[in-house]
Amino acid sequence: MKKSLIALAVLAASGAAMAQSSVTLFGVVDATYAYGNGSVANRSQLTNSGYNSSRLGFRGVEDLGGGLSASFWLEAGLTNDDGRGGSTNTNNQTTGANASGGLVFNRRSTVSLNGGFGELRLGRDYTPQFWNLTVFDPFGTNGVGTTQTLNSSLGGPTTIRASNAIGYFLPGNLGGFYGQVQYYLGENASNVANKKDGNGLALRAGWANGPLNVAGAVSQTKFLNADIKAFNLGLQYDFGVAKLLTHVNRDDIKNGAEGTGWLVGALVPVGAGEIRVAYSTYEVDVAGPDPRSNKFALGYVHNLSKRTAVYATAAAVKNKNGAAQALNGSTTAAGRNSSGYDFGIRHSF
Amino acid sequence: MKKSLIALAVLAASGAAMAQSSVTLFGVVDATYAYGNGSVANRSQLTNSGYNSSRLGFRGVEDLGGGLSASFWLEAGLTNDDGRGGSTNTNNQTTGANASGGLVFNRRSTVSLNGGFGELRLGRDYTPQFWNLTVFDPFGTNGVGTTQTLNSSLGGPTTIRASNAIGYFLPGNLGGFYGQVQYYLGENASNVANKKDGNGLALRAGWANGPLNVAGAVSQTKFLNADIKAFNLGLQYDFGVAKLLTHVNRDDIKNGAEGTGWLVGALVPVGAGEIRVAYSTYEVDVAGPDPRSNKFALGYVHNLSKRTAVYATAAAVKNKNGAAQALNGSTTAAGRNSSGYDFGIRHSF
Amino acid sequence: MKKSLIALAVLAASGAAMAQSSVTLFGVVDATYAYGNGSVANRSQLTNSGYNSSRLGFRGVEDLGGGLSASFWLEAGLTNDDGRGGSTNTNNQTTGANASGGLVFNRRSTVSLNGGFGELRLGRDYTPQFWNLTVFDPFGTNGVGTTQTLNSSLGGPTTIRASNAIGYFLPGNLGGFYGQVQYYLGENASNVANKKDGNGLALRAGWANGPLNVAGAVSQTKFLNADIKAFNLGLQYDFGVAKLLTHVNRDDIKNGAEGTGWLVGALVPVGAGEIRVAYSTYEVDVAGPDPRSNKFALGYVHNLSKRTAVYATAAAVKNKNGAAQALNGSTTAAGRNSSGYDFGIRHSF
Repeated sequence: MKKSLIALAVLAASGAAMAQSSVTLFGVVDATYAYGNGSVANRSQLTNSGYNSSRLGFRGVEDLGGGLSASFWLEAGLTNDDGRGGSTNTNNQTTGANASGGLVFNRRSTVSLNGGFGELRLGRDYTPQFWNLTVFDPFGTNGVGTTQTLNSSLGGPTTIRASNAIGYFLPGNLGGFYGQVQYYLGENASNVANKKDGNGLALRAGWANGPLNVAGAVSQTKFLNADIKAFNLGLQYDFGVAKLLTHVNRDDIKNGAEGTGWLVGALVPVGAGEIRVAYSTYEVDVAGPDPRSNKFALGYVHNLSKRTAVYATAAAVKNKNGAAQALNGSTTAAGRNSSGYDFGIRHSF
Repeated sequence: MKKSLIALAVLAASGAAMAQSSVTLFGVVDATYAYGNGSVANRSQLTNSGYNSSRLGFRGVEDLGGGLSASFWLEAGLTNDDGRGGSTNTNNQTTGANASGGLVFNRRSTVSLNGGFGELRLGRDYTPQFWNLTVFDPFGTNGVGTTQTLNSSLGGPTTIRASNAIGYFLPGNLGGFYGQVQYYLGENASNVANKKDGNGLALRAGWANGPLNVAGAVSQTKFLNADIKAFNLGLQYDFGVAKLLTHVNRDDIKNGAEGTGWLVGALVPVGAGEIRVAYSTYEVDVAGPDPRSNKFALGYVHNLSKRTAVYATAAAVKNKNGAAQALNGSTTAAGRNSSGYDFGIRHSF
Repeated sequence: MKKSLIALAVLAASGAAMAQSSVTLFGVVDATYAYGNGSVANRSQLTNSGYNSSRLGFRGVEDLGGGLSASFWLEAGLTNDDGRGGSTNTNNQTTGANASGGLVFNRRSTVSLNGGFGELRLGRDYTPQFWNLTVFDPFGTNGVGTTQTLNSSLGGPTTIRASNAIGYFLPGNLGGFYGQVQYYLGENASNVANKKDGNGLALRAGWANGPLNVAGAVSQTKFLNADIKAFNLGLQYDFGVAKLLTHVNRDDIKNGAEGTGWLVGALVPVGAGEIRVAYSTYEVDVAGPDPRSNKFALGYVHNLSKRTAVYATAAAVKNKNGAAQALNGSTTAAGRNSSGYDFGIRHSF
């Protein structure tokens, strides 16, 4: 989705400064048959986003001259099995949850100023701590294969995205070095005890050169007596015959639980397709034995074109010490295992 | 709406396989003044979809080569009198109702693989049993003239559409023979008594040749001790001076009521316009006298262009044995009559 | 947003009558940092629409020949700080409120027939009484500078827009004279006491010639024993070095409160930018001392292009006799003051 497949011709309203300007309509419709098996209940679904997240979006860039540009990005999640949109959160707190239903630009809703200095980005966007997980997961945190470091995460409402965010990205010409910082607001009134809840700060920095890509992210989100800190490190190395991906992740709730996990996986190109494989694990540090979930996932994607692919994935999770992670909508008892598979078609435009 | 009025130029991202590919933005905005008269209460409204259902959609086709193509279709209902979207249902059961509000792709939300074998279509779509009603209704199941076989239907949550559906359509080159099969999932957990609720299977087959089009549909949707079966047959014959349309319909709730109805109607071209007329009736078979509603509807559509039309329709319904069908938002007492009219403008793009 | 920045090529489906036809995708993404200070609580937000209302829209025109055309306009509000849509109202009464969440075409959702006679417009639209306020407010009723004649208004659910509206606009060739009338329906059943609630009628007429633009609007919305009448007059004069804007506004609830307010302001072009300044006041006539709020606002907009601008505004409001108007999400006690500022970026497409 990073390439502009469709560019609408812009009729210059005012002349000179319109060069290079465009508005793009884009999206993904990914439909999946998903089956989950658990010790309590199984489930069969025709669902969505087994390979890539279904979405509909509008984005554009305006060249302002002098190396400056302005851009916008509005991207809505789709549950295309039933036609609904996704869900967002207005204040980075549980009170701000906006239930799934009508179309919302929950995936991204930003306006940016871009130049030699980098990018200033305002609105709702991925958090740096999530971005550093998904980039180093062979399954891209979609479908039954999603890394257990995300599925078990203690990261709270900003685990994946944050609203009311002010983001800054370094420019792309730093010899492989990249980085971003994001500050987000909970927007509470100043006369309440939890006035800082939902405020947060996150950083991500990395280095990509040739076959190597390595990056780390750190974040803190304020909650009264329960700040959530996250830290993760990821690495990808392209051996040619395969890409190796690995990451470690740690979530820490102040006065509460801590969680630690890691993943090792690979992407193996095979003709027009790709084999995906990952082992991931997450353990929550509590009083008594620590609940832990270990997952193994294996999948194959077959590309019919750059835009259209069919795919299948199978995964199994082992739960220990009271963990009860279950796959694809199944339910499993504490300490019991779960497995699942999904297969489907992903079409992007 | 079946023709691509607007095709956005596709800039080939990857070259060869992009031929014939396109993304289309389309829609209908239909505004109607509607008046309903009933024995209890009348109602005046500026409403929508009096002639065609208001909608906004995005669809596209990608040529994959070798006779194969991939396509998507996202179509949202609009209540353009107040700016809201339509309503959908996530699980084909009453528990899955998603109230009208924000835009949802409730009308259709699918991704397809197409080829010489036909079409495999995944997502939310019309049910075959509904499609066979609307095609053989001169009023297309829109506005005050809508056939009583739909307005009185006992068909439950999948009367019109189903979510989580796997559909297959025969190819178009079978000498006039056409057909489709659709399987849809209720997606319940396996450990509940009503685990199959909302699962369903439906078939439609027909034959169109020259002036004749005839088709039948049959469906069964599972509900614990209350499966709903539907069966209907429709026929259209084009005499040149007029098209005759007729259908019969039967709904059967296991351990519950049965309903039977039929329609006879016609479409009469008159210059740039068309006269529409229909008589329809539906009777519910219960203990004691069977409630029955008989409806007569007459209308005229005047085409200002292929995309824009003005129209007017009037209808009256007679209720017997406790039936209380009322038109255009009016309320009528059991056994009392109701009438109504609407007139408006339909603009498509 | 009144200019068609993007025109999608229309492939003629039927030939001749398609000349001049187009469909346009348009929008505004405006992100703002907003701070409000009040005697009870302050608030910091990354919010939206500080300069222009954020929106996403689709509109189009079809030439019908003979001077006639049909057109549609679907425009959704955006809270781009969190990705949600706006809120609408289905029946022009408090019972019809549709909470903010999924995308709705709350800003405008209309279909029109246009010709030498003017324009007939059906659907949801601005009310004439609001339009006459916003046009004569240097801050365009957006952001912390918004005129107090709107912020304090007693106008009820149709203060800004009405659903179920039938509007008529005079043609544009009347030598500077312009006018519109709008009738809207509450759509209640006829057998309730408040059956006329939400019905309304509004008129606006004005004259624009050279540097002068003057207009008045009057409206009445029915509510049982509590009809709301509004009346306002606005004037703009362009002295070249600055535009002077002023308006007076009066709201009157039958058997209830009356409110009266006025504004004096100016727009001063400065190179690629514009200084905006306004003083506005609103007083509610009740038993005892009349609550009154006086506001002063000063801002600057710097245009980076026709589509992109950065801006900053500061404002302060003085409350008297129990008024408690507060700015930018702050809370202030009765009779205490409030202040606030916002700065941000507005990008349109």
